[in-house]
Amino acid sequence: MGNFKEDIARVEAMVFDVDGVMTDGRIIPTAEGDFIRCYNAKDAYAVAYAVKQGYRICVISGGFGKTLERRVRMMGIRDYFLNCSDKIATLRDYMQRHDLRPEQVLYMGDDIPDLECMRAVGLPVCPADAASEVLEASRYVSEFEGGRGAVRDIVEQVLRARGDWAKNYHGVISAADAAN
Amino acid sequence: MGNFKEDIARVEAMVFDVDGVMTDGRIIPTAEGDFIRCYNAKDAYAVAYAVKQGYRICVISGGFGKTLERRVRMMGIRDYFLNCSDKIATLRDYMQRHDLRPEQVLYMGDDIPDLECMRAVGLPVCPADAASEVLEASRYVSEFEGGRGAVRDIVEQVLRARGDWAKNYHGVISAADAAN
Amino acid sequence: MGNFKEDIARVEAMVFDVDGVMTDGRIIPTAEGDFIRCYNAKDAYAVAYAVKQGYRICVISGGFGKTLERRVRMMGIRDYFLNCSDKIATLRDYMQRHDLRPEQVLYMGDDIPDLECMRAVGLPVCPADAASEVLEASRYVSEFEGGRGAVRDIVEQVLRARGDWAKNYHGVISAADAAN
Amino acid sequence: MGNFKEDIARVEAMVFDVDGVMTDGRIIPTAEGDFIRCYNAKDAYAVAYAVKQGYRICVISGGFGKTLERRVRMMGIRDYFLNCSDKIATLRDYMQRHDLRPEQVLYMGDDIPDLECMRAVGLPVCPADAASEVLEASRYVSEFEGGRGAVRDIVEQVLRARGDWAKNYHGVISAADAAN
Repeated sequence: MGNFKEDIARVEAMVFDVDGVMTDGRIIPTAEGDFIRCYNAKDAYAVAYAVKQGYRICVISGGFGKTLERRVRMMGIRDYFLNCSDKIATLRDYMQRHDLRPEQVLYMGDDIPDLECMRAVGLPVCPADAASEVLEASRYVSEFEGGRGAVRDIVEQVLRARGDWAKNYHGVISAADAAN
Repeated sequence: MGNFKEDIARVEAMVFDVDGVMTDGRIIPTAEGDFIRCYNAKDAYAVAYAVKQGYRICVISGGFGKTLERRVRMMGIRDYFLNCSDKIATLRDYMQRHDLRPEQVLYMGDDIPDLECMRAVGLPVCPADAASEVLEASRYVSEFEGGRGAVRDIVEQVLRARGDWAKNYHGVISAADAAN
Repeated sequence: MGNFKEDIARVEAMVFDVDGVMTDGRIIPTAEGDFIRCYNAKDAYAVAYAVKQGYRICVISGGFGKTLERRVRMMGIRDYFLNCSDKIATLRDYMQRHDLRPEQVLYMGDDIPDLECMRAVGLPVCPADAASEVLEASRYVSEFEGGRGAVRDIVEQVLRARGDWAKNYHGVISAADAAN
Repeated sequence: MGNFKEDIARVEAMVFDVDGVMTDGRIIPTAEGDFIRCYNAKDAYAVAYAVKQGYRICVISGGFGKTLERRVRMMGIRDYFLNCSDKIATLRDYMQRHDLRPEQVLYMGDDIPDLECMRAVGLPVCPADAASEVLEASRYVSEFEGGRGAVRDIVEQVLRARGDWAKNYHGVISAADAAN
């Protein structure tokens, strides 16, 4: 375990929990038996951008529902495991299948069912409002809460560390260009 | 009435109001006559975990609606009294049926209709944003608001006081284990 | 215009705007052409209680929708004027019909269409997050925002000033009783 | 580029992104494939008022959905470009069609896809919670967040700078009148 800035530059895959990470933790049941969850547009932009840049993005969640699946797919994520009762087995299988070493994997969780996964990767991270056990187990705690920018924050940091964020794509101009 | 830490370790049953306690107090009516309420994933995890550990969890609410009932059942709660206009009679009946003495019962409420129940149990508690009368009647005021972690906070405290929180269940490792 | 505490004790009728007062100002259109608004359980308790105590509660709103009407009726309010494009004429007609003098009427609004009404009553009040013109026109600015307790705050204050809040109703015990 | 107060008085057209600007950035997918977004009543009042005063208001958004279109139309906006993948081309076309010079155009965006448009107008502005690149590219950062008053803030400022806000319309009385 080295310097955080060096370690984050080695990340090839980012794995996210949903409730409390990609959402603010609120779950709103509907009369039809589905669930409403509140996602964040800035998170979604960064995830979709990372997918286009070739990063592996994976979702592992105990949650389920038709709209959850649709939302994950809309962000371009193809590796998602919903209604998952054994997160650690799912993560290990995913890492093996894609030949990912722990130091290449970042995992953002917010609660106790995420703890085993966080211990299995090189970069366990969490939103500002994660459970106390998760805060302790994290190498990086975002200043943003779940569903309020925590995902955007970490995706941006990984892509910046690897020089993939400011690529003049969709109007992004690097700080150097903007100065001219 | 003794020390709070000692008293909380005697709790066998936890009784919760819904609106303003398990939710943030917002009630969103739908065109179909049902109501949307916003629950919290971290609260739900702790409640479901406590149920599995054998704690009695009870919901007494003046609220109603199909989705409210479904949500309560999803957390594993089997004792729930909705559309309840006489909370104190319901609570007394519940305590008698399960042979619970006041000092074994915790009640979390947030508003005036909860006051009689709070006076009937050994451990009346409330969220940070409860009504002033309820704040005064509480032995413990959570630092978290209703629907934003107040339920999680008190469930965690009870289970920790009784040694039931950190049981290596779902990846939880006790502080002692983690230190090794 | 005298002392606020004296003036508030003269209030017989309370008139409320909806969006930004009884709700947090968010309006969520649905695919069916209705609107979702977020109400507050503590506000609703106080309004329903005031209605039962015989206070005149009136809603005047430019908003509309089936669920808005149902919600207003659920709180026991029978005088409501929705989709209202001329608030001041509606208010004057309401006051005349019920023989209300300005000093007997409180009006809580949050935005410019409420200004004329606020100038026509003895007690113009507003939530903490009202528009700047409304803040200036108010005799009392609640510390709570719209949909987050502003209505509860003012209803409680009126009923307390008139000795109608702590009536041992629904479990409320006056401070004096509680001390015994 | 001169004084901000002088420059804002030259604005004839205001162009807005939707997600994170007119809304708080939350996107709530529904089971039917539409999206729920949370708008703000005070924003809507100001936009509708500006339209009535003859200002050009335009919406350019990558978002889509039936309710998004209905909401934009309800505010009186007739120039809207949804599901837009090339914002800068759309903006240039709009400006050319209406013969608008850059200094007559204000653009409020919140994220990277807005950057090119912000560089093409005289008055790039953003909500308090915009992405860091957008904050840097803005001449004015509202103290309000997206969906929580940022749109109202900038519309009010433009109309005040041009003497169009306090027109005794809908009960607005100018500061001078109120003093008498």
